[in-house]
Amino acid sequence: MRHSLPEPLSFVRASAAFSAGRGTPRAFLEQCLAAVKRHDKSIQAFVTLDARAARKAADAATRRYKTGRPLSPVDGCPIAVKDIIATADMPTQMNSPIYKGWRPKSDAAAVAALRQAGAVIVGKTVTTEFAIGRSGPTKNPWDTTRTPGGSSSGSAAAVACGMVPAALGTQTQGSVLRPAAYCGVVGFKPTHGALHTGGIHLLSATSDHLGVIAATVEDAWQVAAQISIGTASPGVGFLAGATETPPVAHQPRKLIRLFTRGWTETDADTRAAFDAFIDRVKSRGIDVTSRDEDAEAAELEAHFEKELDGHLDLIAYEMRWPFEDYLARYGPKMVGPRIRELLERARALTPRDYEARLATRHRLQRAAAALLARCGGFITLACSGPAPRGLAQTGSRTFPSYASWLGLPAFSLPLLEVNGLPVGVQLIGRAGADSTLCATAQWMTTTARLASA
Amino acid sequence: MRHSLPEPLSFVRASAAFSAGRGTPRAFLEQCLAAVKRHDKSIQAFVTLDARAARKAADAATRRYKTGRPLSPVDGCPIAVKDIIATADMPTQMNSPIYKGWRPKSDAAAVAALRQAGAVIVGKTVTTEFAIGRSGPTKNPWDTTRTPGGSSSGSAAAVACGMVPAALGTQTQGSVLRPAAYCGVVGFKPTHGALHTGGIHLLSATSDHLGVIAATVEDAWQVAAQISIGTASPGVGFLAGATETPPVAHQPRKLIRLFTRGWTETDADTRAAFDAFIDRVKSRGIDVTSRDEDAEAAELEAHFEKELDGHLDLIAYEMRWPFEDYLARYGPKMVGPRIRELLERARALTPRDYEARLATRHRLQRAAAALLARCGGFITLACSGPAPRGLAQTGSRTFPSYASWLGLPAFSLPLLEVNGLPVGVQLIGRAGADSTLCATAQWMTTTARLASA
Repeated sequence: MRHSLPEPLSFVRASAAFSAGRGTPRAFLEQCLAAVKRHDKSIQAFVTLDARAARKAADAATRRYKTGRPLSPVDGCPIAVKDIIATADMPTQMNSPIYKGWRPKSDAAAVAALRQAGAVIVGKTVTTEFAIGRSGPTKNPWDTTRTPGGSSSGSAAAVACGMVPAALGTQTQGSVLRPAAYCGVVGFKPTHGALHTGGIHLLSATSDHLGVIAATVEDAWQVAAQISIGTASPGVGFLAGATETPPVAHQPRKLIRLFTRGWTETDADTRAAFDAFIDRVKSRGIDVTSRDEDAEAAELEAHFEKELDGHLDLIAYEMRWPFEDYLARYGPKMVGPRIRELLERARALTPRDYEARLATRHRLQRAAAALLARCGGFITLACSGPAPRGLAQTGSRTFPSYASWLGLPAFSLPLLEVNGLPVGVQLIGRAGADSTLCATAQWMTTTARLASA
Repeated sequence: MRHSLPEPLSFVRASAAFSAGRGTPRAFLEQCLAAVKRHDKSIQAFVTLDARAARKAADAATRRYKTGRPLSPVDGCPIAVKDIIATADMPTQMNSPIYKGWRPKSDAAAVAALRQAGAVIVGKTVTTEFAIGRSGPTKNPWDTTRTPGGSSSGSAAAVACGMVPAALGTQTQGSVLRPAAYCGVVGFKPTHGALHTGGIHLLSATSDHLGVIAATVEDAWQVAAQISIGTASPGVGFLAGATETPPVAHQPRKLIRLFTRGWTETDADTRAAFDAFIDRVKSRGIDVTSRDEDAEAAELEAHFEKELDGHLDLIAYEMRWPFEDYLARYGPKMVGPRIRELLERARALTPRDYEARLATRHRLQRAAAALLARCGGFITLACSGPAPRGLAQTGSRTFPSYASWLGLPAFSLPLLEVNGLPVGVQLIGRAGADSTLCATAQWMTTTARLASA
């Protein structure tokens, strides 16, 4: 059904003209709401929509542009919010019967910061249960028989349909990059801790990240930057390079290609498409090496392979609170099977096991940092192929999970098309070097003939 | 009114006899509930009490001791919970009209861990508004015209009256140690991050600590240890030395006495009492040095003096979320003047100011660690003197704020009496060396003739 879809809508591009009197936030919002009206009955990206409040906020932004005083680069930008992120004016329901109709007392820190910057909060998007359990009803806009990916399912689908230029998501394993990759839009998960996660339902504090799914790299960056400027991450500070101006496209000199366990899950067409992409990157004069030529990369890949299952142990162990309490309090019918399975896994772990998994993560973080110090980033797939058929599952998390595990910044870029469906390319950078990675992502998405489409 | 007060009740001492058939958790609870009945009308330590649920839990514990299978050293221990810590079966109201009647969906991580260990959650204790704003109605059990200290006001008063052997508190500046010091009981604030703070209303993530107020050092330690064993702190792990057996009393070889800005706030009687205490410690053969003999200590004291105001900047800046949102959403009448004042302070700070305060804290943490590596801990007062008169304020936070600022473990020990009122001695240890500090605190509280009372 892609032929009937509008292109993802960039707010950053449109707003450049607002100050010159061409277009307004209100008119931009109406375009978004029209896309919602056209597509959301079949796609089901939204669980709550507040068009009235959004129009009011867009009108206020329109007045600010008219007087030449927009509050920020996202003033008037329609943004959708994954439904595990708190909003005080709309229910926050986690796709869990436990939270049906629940209303928190304040907005999440990120939502509060975006409203401060003038952004227009349009509504809440479908998440899988607590961002890890049962799938929601959202469909992939490219083929409604396929999953949009999860857990930020609605956020990715809404951006892909032009319902919003940007949406907030969260990632503990693959929940921002994977749906972005399956839906043909940009996913950005900054360094662990770089964005304030206050007001977001916790899964695993060592692996939870707030991220942005958007029409372009610039839109994703500007939303993340405004969250950071508005609300420092406690104890960490600000996203590096978070200013009013996004990083300028910059061609890297060297990238290291990662295979990871994800490569064993790919199909022949996806392999061929990614190999061809790497050839195009090389043809631009970029040195792309991998485990085949680099002993240190080979060693990291071997460690990854050996230790990857430990990441799920970490997540499961940290999920004991509050999920064991939910299970005891509300009963097994109120908690989905995937979550109960993870709690089972956690019960088999000892405190010493948990400490060992933390130590392993720390060791791998140091190994990855050493390797990243001598290149412009890691490059790999963001998903193992086009979105699989069926809505009961949300696809493999393997490819995007490494950056979540180690807390490294990562982008999924819509650069590949395999059998008419989008597949994301993943860029992973040094911890804290988010703006450098963004500059590379900018270069990749704006350089002609890199994309396969 | 002290003469009519029962002694603080130790659960650890009483429970040693349970297994031998002398006493039961139910009988112990009834002793506590009788103290509540006798004192709480005037003291007002509790905001919510659930005697029925507590009796049911105590009966279950009684059955476990009868079959020789208590769940943990705190099985059957009555515990009160400060009302900014979530409980799913009782309202959690933060002493704020915004949260009147509010019920969270799960217990806080610490409460869930304690219930797992068999502890009996008796009720919720009075906090100042969000643990930093308007004072509550609680009175000091030693003199009801005086403040019990805050913000864990009800927790300290309840322990002092024998209403519970232990209560949970939180500390961002002085909120565990100060009320413990004013009420003549033990306060223990572990290393920053050592205990899971999930389900506790946030003030300042860099300075918020979960702590325990208890009748004895052993009671405080066992409660903290069971929280840690039951729920790892995400990304940090477990409280060092958290086992079933509390650390054994151990005499330190050397302590460094800190003066800090707190010393300028003391009265002559308190100075004399503390000087005499230091003499008694020295008479035990312990080397107690200070800025007068130690250049590195003098340098740290100078840095403390210069930078202390920066700690309040850190707290205020981090409070912007969610308090700016509360203020905008519910109006100034719903947010107390102290909190509004801190938000004003935060508005005057730039992102660069915040980063500078974080860097200063980090620098002081390294300087303190270097000094602590060559002694058994810092020793100083936990409060500037006996609790001041009046309930509208909760006394000076200066003495206890340093350990909160740097995240160091600290105890307040009820070792001084000044004009018939309790004053706490503060012990501060190395980050992560909580059990070593506990061994010193054990030694100090169990060694004859160290206390002035």
